[in-house]
Amino acid sequence: MRILHTADWHIGRRLHGFDLTKEQNHAFEQIEQIALDEHVDGIIMAGDLYDRSMPSEAAVAQLNQMLQQLNLVDKVPLYAISGNHDSAIRLSTGTPWFKSTQFYMYTRLEQAFKPVELPDTQLFLLPYFEPFAAQQYFNDDSLQHLEQAIVPIVAKMKTLFDPNKKHLLVAHFFVAGSATTDSETQLKVGGLAAVPAGLLKDFDYVALGHLHGKNALHAKNARYSGSPLKFSLSETKQEKGVFIVDTEPFKITFKPLTPLKNVQQLTEYFETLEDKDFYKDLQLDNYFGITLKDRKPIPNVMARLREIYPNIIALNRADGYETNVEGSGESGKQIRQKDPIELLSDFYKQVAKDDLSPQQIKWAQEALKIAAKRESK
Amino acid sequence: MRILHTADWHIGRRLHGFDLTKEQNHAFEQIEQIALDEHVDGIIMAGDLYDRSMPSEAAVAQLNQMLQQLNLVDKVPLYAISGNHDSAIRLSTGTPWFKSTQFYMYTRLEQAFKPVELPDTQLFLLPYFEPFAAQQYFNDDSLQHLEQAIVPIVAKMKTLFDPNKKHLLVAHFFVAGSATTDSETQLKVGGLAAVPAGLLKDFDYVALGHLHGKNALHAKNARYSGSPLKFSLSETKQEKGVFIVDTEPFKITFKPLTPLKNVQQLTEYFETLEDKDFYKDLQLDNYFGITLKDRKPIPNVMARLREIYPNIIALNRADGYETNVEGSGESGKQIRQKDPIELLSDFYKQVAKDDLSPQQIKWAQEALKIAAKRESK
Repeated sequence: MRILHTADWHIGRRLHGFDLTKEQNHAFEQIEQIALDEHVDGIIMAGDLYDRSMPSEAAVAQLNQMLQQLNLVDKVPLYAISGNHDSAIRLSTGTPWFKSTQFYMYTRLEQAFKPVELPDTQLFLLPYFEPFAAQQYFNDDSLQHLEQAIVPIVAKMKTLFDPNKKHLLVAHFFVAGSATTDSETQLKVGGLAAVPAGLLKDFDYVALGHLHGKNALHAKNARYSGSPLKFSLSETKQEKGVFIVDTEPFKITFKPLTPLKNVQQLTEYFETLEDKDFYKDLQLDNYFGITLKDRKPIPNVMARLREIYPNIIALNRADGYETNVEGSGESGKQIRQKDPIELLSDFYKQVAKDDLSPQQIKWAQEALKIAAKRESK
Repeated sequence: MRILHTADWHIGRRLHGFDLTKEQNHAFEQIEQIALDEHVDGIIMAGDLYDRSMPSEAAVAQLNQMLQQLNLVDKVPLYAISGNHDSAIRLSTGTPWFKSTQFYMYTRLEQAFKPVELPDTQLFLLPYFEPFAAQQYFNDDSLQHLEQAIVPIVAKMKTLFDPNKKHLLVAHFFVAGSATTDSETQLKVGGLAAVPAGLLKDFDYVALGHLHGKNALHAKNARYSGSPLKFSLSETKQEKGVFIVDTEPFKITFKPLTPLKNVQQLTEYFETLEDKDFYKDLQLDNYFGITLKDRKPIPNVMARLREIYPNIIALNRADGYETNVEGSGESGKQIRQKDPIELLSDFYKQVAKDDLSPQQIKWAQEALKIAAKRESK
């Protein structure tokens, strides 16, 4: 069979405050088109469909629309599990009805032992689970960690293997040996221990969710599809897409997705960033993380950069700041001894290229009085 | 056809802090049994399935279980709409799949114009809607209020009438002339204006949700089923249940539900409430609202009453309190001049029938010191 493997849609996620609804829809449309062009027998969604356990109404409407489009309009079978970001209970709403159109949404551990039986393949859908669920299911309190709990789970699945079929596993966890980046390490710290890759060797393919980079794990028979979008600056260098997996003969093909707005990192001097020759070839409405090589203060730096790069998601300095205010040459001690109003006037002049007005001085004096009163309490 | 009419389940609702999960399940089991015993052709649920737009996971699990039981296990068709307490978007999750088993869950105004076509009946499901939705649908900004918006809605429905069938309407709004109680008036203030009953006269039956009492409206062809449980002290005198509605010949039959724990109001003297002869015939684990006829202070009154009536949901006085502390005869001015520790000692003695211990006096003095310090700031 031929299947499309995707994961970690995180519908409802925001990127440093920016709404990603359009970006999510744009990625979705490409995934849908790939599924249709490749005539896949189904789509695997390996968890984290939502970004959080209590998604907003807008996120619910968006994911509902996507799932209806794929399954009811395009008539593509769906094989989905809940991830650690999903509420298994909320995601299970309506699921008993979905099977009538070959939409399998599994959210409870015990469902992992009812493989979806396709003509040539057994599809085991293992949702994200806490070790406690395995303790309950196997009546074994010793299953304290994921690497313990996964052993009887895989063993039980193997007892269900039909030797005449291929065996696919869909899961949402961290596999030991996976390459981590900043954002992925965070995820791991977020409560998931590691599953040894060797435990998964008897499956023909393991379609994983959880890590956001498609190259996180290079096992012969297992892959993270990664997320369809870049969700953080630590993912700027990742290529996003989905896998087309053929089981007979076995073949994995990566299909890239083109972002509506890319997430990019720029590390430059301010002067360079303002230089038309530098930015003329950039897609300026991309989401930029900007790291300035400058060490001197730059007045109104964010506002000036946003005139060119409207969607800045982070701004910081490569080498920190100069300790002295530019041009004054005053030491920290000298500055601390100055009268606060004088200090404010200096700062204002430097930043705004103007003197404080009498009204502004009056306001500042009143504010200082209040602050002084509070301090003396 | 024969249909069961219920509404306002408010799954997830609490009664003055008490969890109603068991009570809701108990009522549900009776409704299910009535549906089976009466061999109904379907169950109408006229809105407010949940108590709030963002129900808890426990509430989601509970309602999901109920709907699956009725529709997938018992194979009873369901005709449901969203109410003003529901999130139409959240409640719409999965609904396109539900129709395969005759489960109609309508949450958008435009769905009201796609009646469910049964052999002898057209069932119009009109979910709760804001006038804005009608403005949009009819492209008419003049539809500012419910009583305006409902006119073109009913007119449009009538154009869809099949003269060879009966016409049923399911709706969730306030019908003018309905009897209101305390809790219902509150609901009306909560954003719903009134629909004139005459507008609904061409339907063979209008199955209403929103008001919690079955006797709120006595039109020839329209009823509120009321809620399955008493949700406030203003509902203590209501008899709860569901309607069985036969369309041919037309007949409405009320089927009462027995509560697991009733909600009752007791207005008595404290002495009476403590009298075994008084309470021996009461179901003491009921939810009681207690109104004391006494006017004098009663030490530890709540704790003492809870020894007999564990589930008190409200406690107040029929005629207020005596203004003077019992027996002391001191005026307010005299009391204000007393030393605080002395005052506390008097009060403690009166309530606890004991003197303050040296440790308690020490604690009180420390607390007073801190309070005095704060006051002087």
